[in-house]
Amino acid sequence: MAKAEIGIFGQGTMGRALALNLAERGHDVAIASRDASEIDAAMAGAGPLAARLHPTRSLSEFVAILRQPRAVLFMIPSGAPLDDMIARIRLLLDVGDTIIDGGNADFNATRARAADLQPGGLHYVGMGVSGGEQGARHGPSMMVGSSDQSWAQLRPMLHAIAARFRGDPCVAHVGPDGAGHFVKTVHNGIEYADMQMIAEIYGLMRDGAGLALAQIAERFDAWRDGPLQSFLIDTTVRALRTVDPQTGHALVDLISDRAGQKGTGRWTVIEALKLGQSASAIEAAVAARAWSAEKDMRVAAEHLLPAVQPGAIPPPEVLEQALLAGRILAHAQGFRVMQAASEAYDWSLDPARIAEIWRAGCIIRSALLDDLALALRGDLPFGHLVLSPVLRARLTASIPALRQVVAAATLSGLAVPSLSAALGWYDSLRRGRSTANLIQAQRDMFGAHGFHRLDRPGTHHGDWVGELQSTKDNTG
Amino acid sequence: MAKAEIGIFGQGTMGRALALNLAERGHDVAIASRDASEIDAAMAGAGPLAARLHPTRSLSEFVAILRQPRAVLFMIPSGAPLDDMIARIRLLLDVGDTIIDGGNADFNATRARAADLQPGGLHYVGMGVSGGEQGARHGPSMMVGSSDQSWAQLRPMLHAIAARFRGDPCVAHVGPDGAGHFVKTVHNGIEYADMQMIAEIYGLMRDGAGLALAQIAERFDAWRDGPLQSFLIDTTVRALRTVDPQTGHALVDLISDRAGQKGTGRWTVIEALKLGQSASAIEAAVAARAWSAEKDMRVAAEHLLPAVQPGAIPPPEVLEQALLAGRILAHAQGFRVMQAASEAYDWSLDPARIAEIWRAGCIIRSALLDDLALALRGDLPFGHLVLSPVLRARLTASIPALRQVVAAATLSGLAVPSLSAALGWYDSLRRGRSTANLIQAQRDMFGAHGFHRLDRPGTHHGDWVGELQSTKDNTG
Repeated sequence: MAKAEIGIFGQGTMGRALALNLAERGHDVAIASRDASEIDAAMAGAGPLAARLHPTRSLSEFVAILRQPRAVLFMIPSGAPLDDMIARIRLLLDVGDTIIDGGNADFNATRARAADLQPGGLHYVGMGVSGGEQGARHGPSMMVGSSDQSWAQLRPMLHAIAARFRGDPCVAHVGPDGAGHFVKTVHNGIEYADMQMIAEIYGLMRDGAGLALAQIAERFDAWRDGPLQSFLIDTTVRALRTVDPQTGHALVDLISDRAGQKGTGRWTVIEALKLGQSASAIEAAVAARAWSAEKDMRVAAEHLLPAVQPGAIPPPEVLEQALLAGRILAHAQGFRVMQAASEAYDWSLDPARIAEIWRAGCIIRSALLDDLALALRGDLPFGHLVLSPVLRARLTASIPALRQVVAAATLSGLAVPSLSAALGWYDSLRRGRSTANLIQAQRDMFGAHGFHRLDRPGTHHGDWVGELQSTKDNTG
Repeated sequence: MAKAEIGIFGQGTMGRALALNLAERGHDVAIASRDASEIDAAMAGAGPLAARLHPTRSLSEFVAILRQPRAVLFMIPSGAPLDDMIARIRLLLDVGDTIIDGGNADFNATRARAADLQPGGLHYVGMGVSGGEQGARHGPSMMVGSSDQSWAQLRPMLHAIAARFRGDPCVAHVGPDGAGHFVKTVHNGIEYADMQMIAEIYGLMRDGAGLALAQIAERFDAWRDGPLQSFLIDTTVRALRTVDPQTGHALVDLISDRAGQKGTGRWTVIEALKLGQSASAIEAAVAARAWSAEKDMRVAAEHLLPAVQPGAIPPPEVLEQALLAGRILAHAQGFRVMQAASEAYDWSLDPARIAEIWRAGCIIRSALLDDLALALRGDLPFGHLVLSPVLRARLTASIPALRQVVAAATLSGLAVPSLSAALGWYDSLRRGRSTANLIQAQRDMFGAHGFHRLDRPGTHHGDWVGELQSTKDNTG
């Protein structure tokens, strides 16, 4: 009766792909769905792997077919549908069983769900799964937030299905409860920034240098084997080279320039702010998508606001180095945010291991991540990636290009908000004496907030000269 | 017995100043505090105004002395202390009484408190009060979120104590429940950006042009009567000119360059993101304060990372225009966020009225706000301030300077994150064809998200050419 090692509830794209991956690795998987046709389609499409898939038609049948302690993986939208299913299935489970959410969830919600289930002896696992449908089917990267017991139970299956980098499975138990979803959220935030920076460079070639699409594709193609080697550069080349069969035009030129987003980029930025940090390069990417939605406004604005004559756009080798610098900085911001979260929630995240499991399977896999993993295992002054010897060398070589590209784009009226935010962060961090002294003076003047001095301890107030008035302020 | 028109609980800097302001305008004010010495100090410092202040020593005495329907204004820290006091005082109040929070509060909390008190017939008012201690004492700008009944009751008192701009009291009933605190939050967000942009220009003069402090002060002083005329430019000049009596050095040079922050800037950015918007120029200001806290790291980084030789910094008149452009854009972002909130929460905010009540009393009062009020009463394509005829003319004249300044700072290695984010927003908005088409192509490729086409309706998927692999991705 109880013959399945794990049950997957939800047979959409990702749920079905994970079920087939597990089956292919010799694991028996119970499958269930609120939508019976999804189950039929999953079985029909499974081929010989169907032998290891066990379709179930009711929640009680689904639970009964699972070996104990049970492992139930939900691959359904987070939020209300998930809470509804948890409320129903918890009544059928026993102490020691594990519920896993394999979707993208707000880690705060994951923590709340884990805390809610814990008194009843149920384990709740927030698991980030990256790699899209192909990754789920043939090898995703997985970030697991769980109890030790759940990890021990899930580990053999997850090791079996994970992507591998030089034999190392791209899966890790990153921490308890919400840690897995937090790390996945930051992964996606970095993905937002990387995609935006690529789009910014594409925009400079298209609208600044005036290159034809084929030329742009050629340049990105040439970067596939260099330091920018990555899945996202690969997808860029494919996107730029695909022709629409119906019209014969390049497909990318026919696609609407309003970008969608689902929340993880935004969550990264919000959590960074709550932690007293800033993921500014990611914020710029989230912003760019948000602004892209105002298409009608943009079209009107282009006519209402003065045009800018594009100046010279730097040559390809400079764009390549600029994009590399931007990518390094976006990753460094993401790791800085994870470090802050690890301290705030006492997670003891291992950043080097996180970089390692991102080297294959996931959307941001790249040659750079191998360097980051090395850097994170080495000397890391103040815990800052930008100060590691490996990355300092990379940045020293590539930052001048980033500077040149941001300046050229600025003068040409071509927005590069994410590249620009990344450089702004770098230049802020390397400024021993910032300009915040002026801000503190003003805050003391009108808010009596006080300030610290460089030359003596304690909190001080200034005896500010002059009148507090503005001629426009005719109060009274 | 019941002789006071309003009660103020909390006699810290702001509570005491508001009590004196009300007393001076002929209103009887009951005062209370958890700290009896605060009451004694308030009475001792009131001079002849003490006749209108009615000190009370218990919550029941405080409530008993108030005319019905009662108005109780809390001037204490938001959060747990406020919730604790609300829980105690609600038991003593009657149907129709009003509780006011005059501090900075997260508008979500204000909404929750209003909803909690409403079934018991108590009105809850979230009131933003800007202007610091001097404003509270002699004329603040106030943003009121309340029921119509509470507004009718409070209006005469608030009109009496408000700052005035050409006779117009700087107070408005902006909307229900959380609207007042939301508008105040955005006010503060704009304040963050304005202060940061001023600090960035100061930094260019100090670290780029190598000017002495007196020269920098002179330049800001010259801007006091031009288009930058504002309270914050005034405070800048005062900050730059104040000498430390103990050392004889300029005080601003002795102040630590780690900036503090209390939350409103961060809230603005977070709420903008939740609304599908971005307050990127404000985010950059919040980020700059956060990064300034990592002083030891910055000092180390300055030595570890390569120095940049500053290039030519544009002359004062260009810096002035750049700062003006940045200020316009930061305000436009803030108003865009308020517009989005007004739609999301069905508040019917009147942006022009908000600009009007910010013309005097508050921290961001400036000559610009008078122009903004006019622009917001006029033609406003797509509801966007940057497209109003008045501001288009201003931006057309000043954006080239902003472009020049951001480019020069970028090449000089001097971070101007807020000015840069503002320009990035402007350049994003005036781009009819963005680069989000590439992002949508990639999202469809690895996430099957689908895309819209320019040439036909519906959601489409691409048949993407080439292999989905990276040589680094040796999955299997």
